[in-house]
Amino acid sequence: MKTRAAVAFEAKKPLEIVEVDLEGPKAGEVLIEIKATGVCHTDAYTLDGLDSEGLFPSILGHEGAGVVVEVGAGVTSLAVGDHVIPLYTPECRQCKSCLSGKTNLCTAIRATQGKGLMPDGTSRFSYKGQTIHHYMGCSTFSNYTVLPEIAVARIRKDAPFKTACYCGCGVTTGVGAVTNTAKVEPGANAIVFGLGGIGLNVIQGLKLVGANMIVGVDINPDREEWGLKFGMTHFVNPKDVSGDLVAHLVALTDGGADYTFDATGNTGVMRTALEACHRGWGESIIIGVAEAGKEIATRPFQLVTGRVWKGTAFGGARGRTDTPKIVDWYMDGKIQIDPMITHVLPLERINEAFDLMHNGESIRTVVTF
Amino acid sequence: MKTRAAVAFEAKKPLEIVEVDLEGPKAGEVLIEIKATGVCHTDAYTLDGLDSEGLFPSILGHEGAGVVVEVGAGVTSLAVGDHVIPLYTPECRQCKSCLSGKTNLCTAIRATQGKGLMPDGTSRFSYKGQTIHHYMGCSTFSNYTVLPEIAVARIRKDAPFKTACYCGCGVTTGVGAVTNTAKVEPGANAIVFGLGGIGLNVIQGLKLVGANMIVGVDINPDREEWGLKFGMTHFVNPKDVSGDLVAHLVALTDGGADYTFDATGNTGVMRTALEACHRGWGESIIIGVAEAGKEIATRPFQLVTGRVWKGTAFGGARGRTDTPKIVDWYMDGKIQIDPMITHVLPLERINEAFDLMHNGESIRTVVTF
Repeated sequence: MKTRAAVAFEAKKPLEIVEVDLEGPKAGEVLIEIKATGVCHTDAYTLDGLDSEGLFPSILGHEGAGVVVEVGAGVTSLAVGDHVIPLYTPECRQCKSCLSGKTNLCTAIRATQGKGLMPDGTSRFSYKGQTIHHYMGCSTFSNYTVLPEIAVARIRKDAPFKTACYCGCGVTTGVGAVTNTAKVEPGANAIVFGLGGIGLNVIQGLKLVGANMIVGVDINPDREEWGLKFGMTHFVNPKDVSGDLVAHLVALTDGGADYTFDATGNTGVMRTALEACHRGWGESIIIGVAEAGKEIATRPFQLVTGRVWKGTAFGGARGRTDTPKIVDWYMDGKIQIDPMITHVLPLERINEAFDLMHNGESIRTVVTF
Repeated sequence: MKTRAAVAFEAKKPLEIVEVDLEGPKAGEVLIEIKATGVCHTDAYTLDGLDSEGLFPSILGHEGAGVVVEVGAGVTSLAVGDHVIPLYTPECRQCKSCLSGKTNLCTAIRATQGKGLMPDGTSRFSYKGQTIHHYMGCSTFSNYTVLPEIAVARIRKDAPFKTACYCGCGVTTGVGAVTNTAKVEPGANAIVFGLGGIGLNVIQGLKLVGANMIVGVDINPDREEWGLKFGMTHFVNPKDVSGDLVAHLVALTDGGADYTFDATGNTGVMRTALEACHRGWGESIIIGVAEAGKEIATRPFQLVTGRVWKGTAFGGARGRTDTPKIVDWYMDGKIQIDPMITHVLPLERINEAFDLMHNGESIRTVVTF
């Protein structure tokens, strides 16, 4: 079949909207009509050529929502008409990782996904006879896309695609970092570094679980208002702090935070986040993706005196099990998504979404088909 | 009163055995007759001038066992004749840290202890009118020493001083890193870096909790036999590994260890220990004390993909509550201490203990009075 898609033919070039060829689903796969997709920093990271493992040409996008329109042989857990979210972190429930009960990082299709291919080692996308790579196993910048059954979460049908798609990455990553990875308890004090889309979702996750102090840190003063919307209790702009930022934050939180979250991707900020943790038990969670080659560092004394350094991917959420719950929480009013979708654009204007992001003008832009 | 003590008059000089003056216990303090004391790397670290906060003159030693011979006003939980272990990590059960239930790092007397003084801001030791500093709140290289009640653990009377003293630091640090900090579960795979006194205690802690693979790593081939004595199942000498050590260890443990422990104090080894953890859930625990100014580093990707970086001090043990239990485990035959005490020397020969340690000839030397 043919489908409209925004193709990344090469790094650092705008996406091109073209009609690509798409093969139907093979055994264990489903064909999905994407109704809406968010444009995330990770897409920009790859498009900007910063990901040393980035592949071109490819169809980016990993934060979508849509409808199953065809199922391949052997597919049992999904049916035509199901509303779904594609998962860049699948959940096979059979591999060592899934069975460990300790991680969401299913390894069933990791090798081929990293190569931009389906589990059988081939791509379903092509353009004028040339192979186009899949991206993060999702390629939601295409109106139709094919995914393995284990990488598709079924969600309730009354959830709007335009907002539910954000649960495919940003919302689940931020809220899940609080609920799954850090397991923040009521009454805890927390600091969130970086009040972009992820950071705001961390903030509303903290509000959801009953945190006490929810401190937001950002060098952009406009973000104070955004943080307050989602439950932030204190705002710190490092530019307004004379002296050491760690000391300021430790004093503010009476000895350091119980939990800190880095949603900036800056390795210097990651260190600050760790060191702003309370001696004895503070845990710092790295969410942001750092530039290739950058390293985190600290004195081991920080850990020996009880601070814990962790990270999270997709908010520690098991894709098929937990993503539908996040959608439920949204539909039940426990978390908000609508105010975060600052821009909605048709596929033809998708490149504007990257500009809005780079200029800090959007929290999240959603592209509709 | 007068007491014999090994005094560190200045850094990088041998200890001198002299008679010092000791004031009796003030309110909330007890006078202890030290019967035996281990000589630990941390004492050597201070004596060698590597600790930028080291104070001289001082009476080193922090791994002792003895008998209460006098109690100050208001002391209710200890009595003359009690067998005890001095604690460099006190347990007041009143401070924010103790009440958190999340850490053993009691802060009740931290400020004065760091200055080599008792909680009232003075020292009980002097020599020819000159103040001698306390060390780690213990100063067990003195035949008699004074400690705050909250920094003394009462132990059973049938435990020999010569071996029980090792529970004042090394045994509890190593075993506790497994049971309190990592909370290793039966069937887990673990790697221990550095098979000195601490590393061997980590190994027997792992055996105690029913770990599966217990891999020991050391560049000293003589340590293989030592590891095997305490439950090690596999030995790796990095000098015998061609190629990348992390890759070797990850292959050996089928994807990486569930838990790794650094007992070397080398920041490069700490990184190896983290990266040898299993993707998704492996936890690395830093036990070793690094040289001043040294930092640990890694790519944040290591944490984002599920590895956790932690540290431990005194094995996460609450001094008064948990140290007596470690002594019980020893007396019940659950852990061994006797084979680790490779040398016993009288106080007069204490400087030989440092030589034995520096030459790698001892696991632990105990000094008796």
